[in-house]
Formats: sequence, C-alpha cells, structure tokens
Amino acid sequence: MVSSTIFESSDAVRSAKPLRYVQSLQLAEPLALEKGGTLPRVTVAYETYGRLSAARDNVILVCHAISGDSHVAKHDAADDPGWWDVVVGPGKAINTDRFFVICPNLLGGCRGTTGPCSENPETGKPYGRDFPTVTIGDMVAVQRRLLSQLGISQLLAVAGGSLGGHQALTWATRHPGSVRGVIALATSPRLTSQAIAFDVVGRNAILHDPHFHGGQYYDQPHGPDVGLALARMIGHITYLSPESMQEKFEADRLHPRDVAIEFEKKFSVGTYLGYQGAKFVERFDANSYVTLSLAMDLFDLGGTPEVLSAAFRPARARWLVISFTSDWLFPPDQSRDLVNALVANNAPVTYCNVQSAGGHDAFLLPDELDIYGEMIRAFLVNLPAGQVPAAGAHAGEAAASHSTTPFEAPPSANSLQPVPAAPGIVQPASAGFAEEHPGPTSIFHQHRLDYDRIVELIPPEASVLDLGCGSGTLLARLRQGNHRRLVGVELDERKILNCVSRGLDVIQEDLNKGLGAFGTQEFDYVILSQTLQAVFDVEGVLLEMLRVGRRCIVSIPNFGYRPLRRMLADDGRAPKSGGVLRYEWYNTPNIRFFTIADFEDFCLSKSLRVDRRIALDTEKHAEIFEEANLDADMAIFVISQNQPATRS
Amino acid sequence: MVSSTIFESSDAVRSAKPLRYVQSLQLAEPLALEKGGTLPRVTVAYETYGRLSAARDNVILVCHAISGDSHVAKHDAADDPGWWDVVVGPGKAINTDRFFVICPNLLGGCRGTTGPCSENPETGKPYGRDFPTVTIGDMVAVQRRLLSQLGISQLLAVAGGSLGGHQALTWATRHPGSVRGVIALATSPRLTSQAIAFDVVGRNAILHDPHFHGGQYYDQPHGPDVGLALARMIGHITYLSPESMQEKFEADRLHPRDVAIEFEKKFSVGTYLGYQGAKFVERFDANSYVTLSLAMDLFDLGGTPEVLSAAFRPARARWLVISFTSDWLFPPDQSRDLVNALVANNAPVTYCNVQSAGGHDAFLLPDELDIYGEMIRAFLVNLPAGQVPAAGAHAGEAAASHSTTPFEAPPSANSLQPVPAAPGIVQPASAGFAEEHPGPTSIFHQHRLDYDRIVELIPPEASVLDLGCGSGTLLARLRQGNHRRLVGVELDERKILNCVSRGLDVIQEDLNKGLGAFGTQEFDYVILSQTLQAVFDVEGVLLEMLRVGRRCIVSIPNFGYRPLRRMLADDGRAPKSGGVLRYEWYNTPNIRFFTIADFEDFCLSKSLRVDRRIALDTEKHAEIFEEANLDADMAIFVISQNQPATRS
Repeated sequence: MVSSTIFESSDAVRSAKPLRYVQSLQLAEPLALEKGGTLPRVTVAYETYGRLSAARDNVILVCHAISGDSHVAKHDAADDPGWWDVVVGPGKAINTDRFFVICPNLLGGCRGTTGPCSENPETGKPYGRDFPTVTIGDMVAVQRRLLSQLGISQLLAVAGGSLGGHQALTWATRHPGSVRGVIALATSPRLTSQAIAFDVVGRNAILHDPHFHGGQYYDQPHGPDVGLALARMIGHITYLSPESMQEKFEADRLHPRDVAIEFEKKFSVGTYLGYQGAKFVERFDANSYVTLSLAMDLFDLGGTPEVLSAAFRPARARWLVISFTSDWLFPPDQSRDLVNALVANNAPVTYCNVQSAGGHDAFLLPDELDIYGEMIRAFLVNLPAGQVPAAGAHAGEAAASHSTTPFEAPPSANSLQPVPAAPGIVQPASAGFAEEHPGPTSIFHQHRLDYDRIVELIPPEASVLDLGCGSGTLLARLRQGNHRRLVGVELDERKILNCVSRGLDVIQEDLNKGLGAFGTQEFDYVILSQTLQAVFDVEGVLLEMLRVGRRCIVSIPNFGYRPLRRMLADDGRAPKSGGVLRYEWYNTPNIRFFTIADFEDFCLSKSLRVDRRIALDTEKHAEIFEEANLDADMAIFVISQNQPATRS
Repeated sequence: MVSSTIFESSDAVRSAKPLRYVQSLQLAEPLALEKGGTLPRVTVAYETYGRLSAARDNVILVCHAISGDSHVAKHDAADDPGWWDVVVGPGKAINTDRFFVICPNLLGGCRGTTGPCSENPETGKPYGRDFPTVTIGDMVAVQRRLLSQLGISQLLAVAGGSLGGHQALTWATRHPGSVRGVIALATSPRLTSQAIAFDVVGRNAILHDPHFHGGQYYDQPHGPDVGLALARMIGHITYLSPESMQEKFEADRLHPRDVAIEFEKKFSVGTYLGYQGAKFVERFDANSYVTLSLAMDLFDLGGTPEVLSAAFRPARARWLVISFTSDWLFPPDQSRDLVNALVANNAPVTYCNVQSAGGHDAFLLPDELDIYGEMIRAFLVNLPAGQVPAAGAHAGEAAASHSTTPFEAPPSANSLQPVPAAPGIVQPASAGFAEEHPGPTSIFHQHRLDYDRIVELIPPEASVLDLGCGSGTLLARLRQGNHRRLVGVELDERKILNCVSRGLDVIQEDLNKGLGAFGTQEFDYVILSQTLQAVFDVEGVLLEMLRVGRRCIVSIPNFGYRPLRRMLADDGRAPKSGGVLRYEWYNTPNIRFFTIADFEDFCLSKSLRVDRRIALDTEKHAEIFEEANLDADMAIFVISQNQPATRS
C-alpha cells in the first residue's frame, strides 16, 4: 500500500468539531413550508467575511452545496480551510476587502442551522424523519429572513454552484427586487434523470441501512453509517470527471491506499472512495443528506424552453452563468438551457462553458481560476451599486406572487452595523482592453476600418448582436451611443473574459451550430464582420442571422479584387493578401472563397434583400462605387428578409 | 402512478426458474485457478443453437456479460426470450441456419455453472465466500475444456460484449490457434477507474448488508437482497446513456411507476431502478455478483500502447471491434486502444464506433442492428473456414506460454455428432458493391479514372493504406493484385459496412485527428484520392501520411485549370465545375483552394520529395506534359520524405 497523499479532496474533509466564527440567529417568526407544515423555531448558523459598507450595498450571499456549510473561507491564517478559499478572501475573485460576504448553513443541514438532527419542540427529541420535506424555496426564505433581521435589504450578488446555484436561481426569480447580480456555477434548472437516479440509490442505501432505525438513530450506538458512506461514495464518483479519475488512479490502479477503512481495499480508487465515505460519516448527518438531496431532486424551474422562459420572466438581475466542459452531473447543456431562457427574456447575461477536466467539482478547484475566477471578479466589479432597476427595465414583468421590492429590513437587535469600508482594490471597468489586438479575423493590422462604417450604419437606440465579437471592441464603441441592448457571441473563453472585464454581455456559442439562444427578430441589427469566409455552414449562419435580426450587417473580403484575380489567373497560385487573407492555402482559417458578385448572387437566389452595400478599397481608404467586384477588397452588406421588416 | 409498461429492460428480466434446453457437463479434470487454488469439480451449463457442420468448422462461441447466462436466444417460438434474440437466430446476424452457436454460463455464475452457490465438495455446503477468486482467464479455460470434451477444436468465431468481450479478447490472445474471428463489442482492455469505482460501491453494498452473513446466507431466510439490489441499481444507471434516461424519464419525472417495491417511490427513474433491483435479486446470487464483478475489475491487458501491443502479439484472428458513441461505461476510446494495439501487430481488423443513444446496452438493443448487426453478419460470412493461419502469417509471434495449436479434441462420450448442415443463406462476399456510386468526393460521374492510374502506380506485394476509402472500390481493385496488406480508413459507418461486406479491413477515423492507429512507416503506400481539398489540417494530414507510409499518393483537383481561372478572372465568380467541384461556394465540402503549382511549392517548402507527378485533363482523357498547371484539371502526386525511403 502506498501513502495516502492523494486524499486531499476538493471537498475539504473537515472534522466535526464546532467551527469558530460561526454566528447564529433565531428567526423571529415560525417558518411555513412550501410542501406543507411549519417549523416553529428556526435557528440559522452563518459566517461573514469583510465589512458591510455604510450604504449596505456591498453584500454578496454565497450559497453552499450539499455537503458544504457556512465556512466558505478561512477567517485568518490559523483558521480551518474553507470550502471556497480559492475564490473568497482578501484580494481574491470575491474580494472581501471590498465586499461583505455572508454564507448561512442550509435549512435541513447539520452544521448549525435547523435540520433533522435539531430538537423537535413538540417532542423534545431530534426531528429525525419527522423533519418535514423542505425545498430550495424554503432554504431561500430562511436566508431572506436572516438577512432582513441583520438589516440587509439588498444583495449586490448571490453566488453558488450546484445546489448553491439552485438557491441563486431561486433568489433571482422569486425575489427579483433584492438581487443585482447572479453568479450561477455548474448548476441547472433541474437535475437530469441520471443525477436523480444516483441520488435515489444513495437514499435507498441510507433508508435501508438496518441502523437507520426509522431515522431515530441519534441515541443509538450507530447511525446508518454504511448507507451514508455508500451514498457519499456514489456522490463522489459523480463529482469527478472520468479523465480526472484516470489521472488520479490509473497508474497504480491495483495498489490500494493505506487507509483504515472497513470497506473493500483492492483498488486505489476503491480505497479513495472508502476513505471519503468513512470521513463523511464523521461530519454529516444521514437524515440531512436525505433531506438536502431530496430538495435538490425536487427543484424544477421547468423542462421546456417555454416553461423555463416563464420562470425567468420576473428576474431583473445581471447574470454570469458558468459551466465546465467535463461536468457530467450538471452537464453544460443545462446551463445553456438557463442562458437561453434568460436571453429569451432580454436579461443581461454572460455565459461561458469553461474548458476543464475537473468535472462537477471544477468550481471548487484552483485549476481554472484564471478563467472562472477572473470572470467572477470582473463581473462583480462591473455590477452597479444601488437599487435593482424596476421591473420592466428589461423585458421582465414580476409575477404577482413574487416579491418585487427590496424586503423590509427593520433595525433590530441583530442588525449589523456598517463600518467604513477598507480601501479595496478597485479595478476600472474596462482596464486593459482599450483597443483590441488584431486577431486572425482582423483584416487591417492597425485599425478596423470596417468598424467605423458599421458603427455609422447602426442608428442609436437599436439593439445589436455582434457575432464573433472577440474582446468586445466593436460593442464597446457602440456602447458610447445610446443603444438599447448590446450582446456579443464569442467562442474563445479568454476573449469572453475580456468582454466581461469591459462590462459587456457575451454568450459563448459556436456559430456553425446556430443561434439557438436567440429568439426570432430579437435584435434590430446582427453583425458578422470578416468572419463569413471562415464559416463552414454559410447558408445556415446567414439564415440564423436573418431569423434573429431585423437587419444583418455582413462584412466580407472580396476574392474578386483585381490583384487576387491576377494571382490565380497570371501566376496560377491561390490568392493571398494581408489581414484576414494573409495565410497560406493550407493553413488559412478561411474556408470559403467568394467574391462580392458571388455574395450578391447568393442573396438573389435566396430572396434576401440587400438594403445597402458599401464597397471599400482599404489600401487606398476609398469607397468604390463602380466595378466594386474588381476594385474593392472588402464589402459591407446590410441585408434583410425580402418581406419588409416589421420595424425598420 | 402510471402503468409499468416502460419496464421492458434491454437486459431481459427473467424468472429464476430453470431454463429448458440447458445442457450441462462436468469437466474431466479439476481446474487449477490463476490466482491460486483448485476447483476439484466444475460443472458447466450451456446451450447450443444450429447444427455442427461435418467439418466441425462452423462453431461460434458466444460469451455473456455479467448478468447474462447461457440462454442467448429463444430455441423456439414458445421459449423464454434470450438476452441476444436480436442478433442470434435463424436468418439473423449470427445465423443459426448456418452456424453452430454455443453459449456456456460463466464460471462463478449462478445459472448452472459452478459458482459460489454450488456445493463445496470439502464441506458439503455452498462455497459462499470460500469460492476462490476467478479471472477471465479461468472462465475461458473452462469454456475451452467444455469445447474440447464436446469434440470441438476450432472456433470459427468468438463473440461477446462487455465482460463477454473480455472473454473474446482472452480467447484470441491466449489461444490464438483456436480462433479464426473475434467479434468484440462495447468492450475494453481493462475497466476505467470510474467503472471500477461503481463496482466497488456495489460490492461494498453487498458485503456490508447485515444479511450477508459472511457469504453463508443460503440457509438464512434472507440474503443480502438490499445490497445486491443497490449494486444492480448502480449498474443499471451505468448501462444507460444520459440521453436514453432523459427520453425514458424526463417527461414524467415526478410520476413514479406503480410497482410493488420496498425502495423509494418518488421519481419515475427511482421506481424503474427499484424494480430492476428487486427483480434482479430473484434471479441472481449476490456472491456471484461479487465474484464476476471482481473478475471484470481485475481484467487487464495493459494500460499503455506498448503493453497492449505486446498483449495482442500472439493473436492471429481476424477482428471486428465495435463500440457505441454513447457508451460511457466502456468508452469508445478504449475500443480504439484495442484497435491501435491490433493495428500495431498488423492484425486484420475492422473498427466502427456506431452512432447510438443506447449507452453500454446498445449492443443488446435492436436500434442500431442495421449497422452493428449487419457488420457482424458480413464479418462472419467473409471469415474463411479451415485452420487458423500459422503464427507469423501476420506479424504475431505466439508466446511460449500460449497454446498456438488447436486444442486436443479426443472423441468422448460427450462428443457432439455433426449433422449435415441445413442449407443456409450464403451471401456472396462482395454482394451489391460491384462499383461504387459516385459520392461527393468522386471527381468523375461515371468512372474514377484516377483509380486506374493509382492502381498502375502501386507495385504488387506492396502494403496499402487507403484514406477516405469509401465503400472500398479502390481497395477491392487492388485486392485483385497480390498485395500484402490492404487497409482502409473511413468515417461513414454505412461505407464501413460496405467494406466489411466486401471482406475488407477498415478503421473508422477522422483524418483531421491524425492517423494515431498506425505506426511509423507501416505501409508501403498511403493513398489520399480527391480528398485533400476537403481536409482542414492539410499539413497535419500530409505529415501523418508520410509518417505512416514510405510513399504517398495524393490526387488533387487543380484550381489552376484554365477554365477555372477564367471564372474568377473574367466572370469574377468563385470557380466551379463538375465532379468534386460541382458545388456552390457556400455549400461545397471543399475548403482548400489550391493549384498544382501551389501543391508543388508546398512540397518544396516542407522538403518533401515529389517522386512522380501525373497531370490529367480528364475531360479529354489525356495526360498533360506541358503547362500542367493550366491544362490539367487533376493531378496525381507520388511523394515521400526527402531522405531516401528505407525500402523503395
């Protein structure tokens, strides 16, 4: 057997000892539950980090996942590790020098907040299985009352991953007036059937453990330790990606780790799981596991785009949605469903599916912090303080059953006293991206001349979707006008991060796969600049643009330009030039070869209307009016569907 | 609750009643086991289908997976369903009108063959946990003895999926002289760490069930029913793909099925799993589950390409390896590892990763039978009867510890008496593909003139790899010569099926992802005809070709052809012609635009040697010797690395 050094889990295994710094508070009123029943007395354990600003406008609520608790991060160097030390702390992505972070333990949990192991006032004994079914909505209701009793009426942001993400989504949809920004990581509108299936097996293992004693095992020598450990082992497998398991265990698969466990010790992965299961039993209550996993399984914002869109209609926050490519428990497509529903409501949202081998746990790991952590940092820095905009500021209409105003926050004995904020590191909203470095799709090395013309073509107050927006240079220029809505689409995650740093909304999407996130005629203008020649499905992309936008602006290089023609005609060589045409035939990103005339023929054959054509000789900085197909190296087209646009 | 009509599992849930048609036989000698110990008495239960031919050369051994048994298929209309009725039977892919099929229950199982529930002769009680650890090698040893006692010394083929595939691989590597063909479905050289992890949790559930009684539960009122059911539930999740679970359970996820089970009944997927678990307990022995899953977890042909290649060196069979895209328990990359190791040994192998939503269970389902079933059918029809070729017929050298000759088959009382074969449906080896229908990569509508020239360029006895081989037209023509080794690479699964029907070996591979399956300088010639213009990574593909082949033959369309130049120069339109150039600029599969001169420049700049160039005007059926870049519409190049090839 080899040493057990691999046993640093992302999900920090902590002792069951009471944590320092945990505060607690009793809710002023009994709590009526969504699925029926009332909890007469609810205690909430929570921890806070940083200082509340005088305006009480710097509060970030962090929501933990199923096995987490209020201990998000270390309070000082000597403190126990927190479950999100990589993200939360002084100078970190959620910068506690600047923000006031609060994290309560969940309703139904076992780390200080009322749950199945708490005393049932009716019997004087622990609730056990008499603890009622609670929902994510109930958990959020408890958090809201806690904040209210602490004198906090507005959240700058709510952030969470997995089950923590479910809470964040619930905050934004149920209490839209209270939340400015939502950071939803590795989460979903509801669990997949596969994820529910794993939870069901885990619960069956707990409930059929002979030491379960109908849930009243608290005065017994043993609880359902084996069942809880089995549930934890199953969970652990689902939190890791197959590739990360391979990396951890393949090399010495037959060499079990030297750990003192009762479980099978034949394979290295087996001893790892056995150890995780055994440690979990020391710090977690089986009834809480059943309660929380059931709440997660019951969470359901909707299974169709229509239902999901309706669910997000009340939301008025700004959104950052992040998934991880190797997460198979909460697959990225589920985050995409969330994003599509938000986009359908015109909500300001940025989405990125971060390349990662970390599986569902990736949001807890340091590996991709340079992307997801920096996105969180940039997103928070760009959130405007102050009141949440009124309902209807974007398309959202608050439903009657939802609270649309900041909740009442009567000063009370518990009320937190704000103190002057420490001088935090305030990063300017658009630091470092004044002008975009010319990328492979820039035709001009020094200056994107086409941008000047495109900006002129778009009237103020128009809504604009920029496809292949890069780091947001064009959108940032348009923002200086008075545009209604500016959204970018980009594939490269670093460019997306640059957009977030500029305070722009950008959705990660592969153009060749369509613009499924966007509704019909959702934008006044859709832009595709110097990119069509690098697109495989030209017709599909153009038709999608025309579906989504009333007018489309497409700028293209012209292979009919005289010098390019000559290269083929006279030299017998594939045309090549500067800018986007600077590559060799065998390594160019450009895979479509066409002329201005070809593009016009295409529009004619597909019954597309060319509203405007601007042909340019960019070398001479001249617009070409005659013989464009010969004398222009570039053209900008404004096209639309042949039937008159509903709004011009 | 809704009706339980969804409960037809692919893994047919059968009663525990003894099956009709099961025969059994006691091995003549005690069985010494690989991991130590001896089983003094081994009984084998088996079933047979079809008739043994007079030459005893039509035997197909079918190997079952962990929860299967000898009942592969119905013996008659009134019989119970078999687990592979979709594949095995009269007129089916494994055609029992033609082949003699035998399927024994596994050593360690609980359906008639000796296992933990069998009587231990030393104690007169069931073995229980005293049953020794058995390996896949032990299972195969039992099968081999069974066949020997039945008078069968040669297998035409061995076929199996999952754990059944592990047995097939073991047959081919340990007993290469006894197997002509191997059909390995949804299998792997060893389990992933993730798959082992699920097995470990299942075994922990069984072994920690308080009714396990140290494995001696046979005289107790209850066995470890909950533990076994939990293990089965976990297994079931891993057999299904996430998409198939979504399809089965998403629509009514909160509506549990109306089934009488002790397990949680809150979600439809939960009742499904509970039902599967409860039914499994009725027909399966927990000790057998532990024994068989451990044998599977211990199976290990190697974790690196080097070790795997060595493991396959003795093999002399022809191979059909099939994986399924949505199988995450035995991921397709593992089949690819198998295939790469076979290719490294010059083994004749066809590989296809069948597009499927069926998950690991796909090989048991009717959905993709038109692909995988027909591949099995075509593969078997093209297997030559008679003795397995001697060692070294391809690169394999049999290791000393392996049996390399057909095993002894002394006539005995058990010996099967062959009967005249029924007139089977004999499909001609190359039915239906006399000449390939021109596909999108055919330059000529009627006849591939370039093939004539390519065939002339390749000397007899050369080994040839044809990239983008389509349905195998060129390879079939080359086969009429006396070539050493002919292999195709193709992406389209129907074209691969056509190749298999022609008796050709073809590997599914995306050219843009490289030729990782093939070793350096493995072929005399590598061919890429009329495809380079449709490849994104031109340089990568050409360098891979030159790594794998001593000489490469590349045929290309010439965009420098005078009429094409004129289209751009005079008409200002993207060039377009017939054949491979018949598409519009916006929908052509061709994404690389270059001339003969461009290609020659490329070769020069990369220090590639052009050994031969044939330029053709295919409209005039003429070879062009002057001004090829102007007057030829096509060219064929023979290129090689600039250092002289080791063998010319």
